[in-house]
Amino acid sequence: MSAGGSRSPAGAAATGVSGRLAAFVAASRWDDVPGAVRHLAVRSILNGFGTALGGSRDQAVVRLMETLRPFSSGATATVIGHRARLDMPTAAFLNAVAVNVFDFDDTHEKTIIHPTAPVLAALFAVAEQVPVSGAALLHAFVLGVEIECRLGNAVSPGHYDRGYHITATCGVFGAAAAVGKLIGLGPQEMLSALGNASAQASGLVETLGFMAKSVGVGNAARNGALSALMARHGVVGPPYPLEGPRGFLNVMCDAPDASALEAGLGEDWQLERNMLKPYPCGVVLNPVIDAALAARAAPAFAADRIESIRVSGHPLLKARADRPFVTSGREAQVSAQHAIAVGLLRGTAGAVDFSDEAVTSPAVVALRAKVAGVDVDPASSIDGARLTVHLVGGTTIDVSIDVATGSLQKPLSDDDVVAKFESLAAYGCPGLDAGKLLEQLWRLEAAPDAGAVMAAARPL
Amino acid sequence: MSAGGSRSPAGAAATGVSGRLAAFVAASRWDDVPGAVRHLAVRSILNGFGTALGGSRDQAVVRLMETLRPFSSGATATVIGHRARLDMPTAAFLNAVAVNVFDFDDTHEKTIIHPTAPVLAALFAVAEQVPVSGAALLHAFVLGVEIECRLGNAVSPGHYDRGYHITATCGVFGAAAAVGKLIGLGPQEMLSALGNASAQASGLVETLGFMAKSVGVGNAARNGALSALMARHGVVGPPYPLEGPRGFLNVMCDAPDASALEAGLGEDWQLERNMLKPYPCGVVLNPVIDAALAARAAPAFAADRIESIRVSGHPLLKARADRPFVTSGREAQVSAQHAIAVGLLRGTAGAVDFSDEAVTSPAVVALRAKVAGVDVDPASSIDGARLTVHLVGGTTIDVSIDVATGSLQKPLSDDDVVAKFESLAAYGCPGLDAGKLLEQLWRLEAAPDAGAVMAAARPL
Repeated sequence: MSAGGSRSPAGAAATGVSGRLAAFVAASRWDDVPGAVRHLAVRSILNGFGTALGGSRDQAVVRLMETLRPFSSGATATVIGHRARLDMPTAAFLNAVAVNVFDFDDTHEKTIIHPTAPVLAALFAVAEQVPVSGAALLHAFVLGVEIECRLGNAVSPGHYDRGYHITATCGVFGAAAAVGKLIGLGPQEMLSALGNASAQASGLVETLGFMAKSVGVGNAARNGALSALMARHGVVGPPYPLEGPRGFLNVMCDAPDASALEAGLGEDWQLERNMLKPYPCGVVLNPVIDAALAARAAPAFAADRIESIRVSGHPLLKARADRPFVTSGREAQVSAQHAIAVGLLRGTAGAVDFSDEAVTSPAVVALRAKVAGVDVDPASSIDGARLTVHLVGGTTIDVSIDVATGSLQKPLSDDDVVAKFESLAAYGCPGLDAGKLLEQLWRLEAAPDAGAVMAAARPL
Repeated sequence: MSAGGSRSPAGAAATGVSGRLAAFVAASRWDDVPGAVRHLAVRSILNGFGTALGGSRDQAVVRLMETLRPFSSGATATVIGHRARLDMPTAAFLNAVAVNVFDFDDTHEKTIIHPTAPVLAALFAVAEQVPVSGAALLHAFVLGVEIECRLGNAVSPGHYDRGYHITATCGVFGAAAAVGKLIGLGPQEMLSALGNASAQASGLVETLGFMAKSVGVGNAARNGALSALMARHGVVGPPYPLEGPRGFLNVMCDAPDASALEAGLGEDWQLERNMLKPYPCGVVLNPVIDAALAARAAPAFAADRIESIRVSGHPLLKARADRPFVTSGREAQVSAQHAIAVGLLRGTAGAVDFSDEAVTSPAVVALRAKVAGVDVDPASSIDGARLTVHLVGGTTIDVSIDVATGSLQKPLSDDDVVAKFESLAAYGCPGLDAGKLLEQLWRLEAAPDAGAVMAAARPL
């Protein structure tokens, strides 16, 4: 009997789109990546570290760490926000979980992939094993996100609609491509990395809202990194893992569009279609919270004089977030009533405002009850909302938002990203010198050793 | 923000079929399993150890071991046929790969799942960590195979036809259920184990014939075992991981039949529908090899007097195995010409006869060339074949096989299973005292410590 990989060499395959994508990643030079995209990469990474710090004490992270720690071979890779280090695959797994656990990480517009979680987690864990420059890591990150989101484009919207958790299923390819680039795979090996990833693409929407969701996301980082290492060790994949008749596109999507894999490749960068969330909620609530914060800033506003509130917006706002009664922070993340209440009462909408504690705060409970209705405005865009606050005595404050903060049209400023990072760090990991980590991440492109940054992600 | 698992407790879910299956596994008693099924379990395990020994030096196993060894936390679990031990998850991964790498392991009739690989590998790796009796391991094995194959029944034939590698995708559930039983999960935890497995169900048919196939199979064992351990640590899954609208059945099959999950549960055991292969080839070649061996035994037969050969059978025989020119052992496994040549020349059809070396043997090459045609007989069953050997001087030997060895109608005898085991052990791991391992496996039900058997699976 023969070696497992002898059906035909994957090397024959640079003729297919899988092979061409692999060759693109292998051949890409840092000079090919425009400055604006480089800056977006740094912002996405910074945002990802922030959400990882915010999520670092979540029970999903804690319980998965307890499960996996006995099988970690050494203390060589940082678990963001924790003192103890674990081995590369375990840290990659847990960091992807932490980045994504609150769904407060970034969102690729067309696909709703959270692209950073699997790619960041895999790359930094590997960078702690093999010295690479900050620029090399950023380059690998850009390419990993590119492959991940282009695969997402090719299978959207059918793939997610069918029930695949696209962050996990496409994330494993992104992590494989990114780590493959970081460790210098050639085009044939890169193709095998994608093939090894194709055998590991998993994740179901049914698990959303449960810790099991995080298992898929963690695997995307871990298994993506290992897919690249396997390829380096000669574990050969098929020549057409994406476009083959029984490959990823055809099997896991009813109507894939393979052309999306290459359209504009190298010019139309997917990081330019990636959004950073301002609030730890479902995106339909972004304009609602914008409106609540604006109403609170109106001269006539007085929280103790609110009589009733109405909100209107896109049909999805009502469909997804008309949720007057909530009992947990998780539910509050998709409750328009809760979002309005904390926005008006507190003037903030951060992690702490969507905690279990915030949900049961008497003042918040009372104000949620004053939201008289969530109305559908068929003319509203998904990025718009209108909030009407009736005060005792007849005064009305009326705020309309056309373009929500965090959308591609109105992205977070760099200062917003910093404020979000600091808020999440203080929420999830108060023992960390967040300023030091922030400074190192902003200067990542010039860092001689990217992995050394991780020391600043561990509390003292 | 809240813990990742607060959407609703999985505990609410014993009302669904996922919950009922979990409860069935948790509640099952060894006394519930008939003696005939217990014996089939021992045979399947013995067959699996044999194929693992045969595959233990395959390049897929070797290269994956090289990749994963640095991330193994300790030497507590046996890699079958190797001296070195690794940690539980890594050993589970590699042993599933080894059992399945040649596709010489068992086959569940309706689904073509190779059920033993993920379940055996996960169970024995865990049994080396926590002392359990042989009977407890056998019981967990029976239940793991049951869940795995019933899931396969529910998604067949659409799932495999679509392009999912069913051994991997269903195997992760089987391993999760088996390990969950072994470590004593209650029904709620068992449901979460299935939920955690649902996030990890992966594997594509496109990878078949390449080492990447083995990545999916290895993960099924490793991730299944970890799914159960995660559940034990409180990693909660969704209440309806199988039957939910975005659960395994609906997402990964176009026309699932959920009723197959429970029809006859506890009475109609899937191990009774499981076949052990007599030859390391595609199953369409089983009757062809039977015929070749019978022809060789005919009094008139003389290998050096063969003039030409024809074979006829089911349309799939021609479609899958009419392959006169082969260059590797892997290809030979699906070549009717090669199978006939070694059967007639050597009177054997074991691992060594489908090696790269056998393929290039001049006598085999010459005889392959004498196979004048593979014909379609529309009346032939998939288990039948007719072989006609024309000898110099006009003598013809004609053999018809109606029911092939290894089919459910004509299973291997226990002696056949032993002979297969011994042949594979000698092929893949000549340094092992195969007789000692064989003896311990036959007596597994009475063993006080199932994990201790693994010492006999390591060469000196």
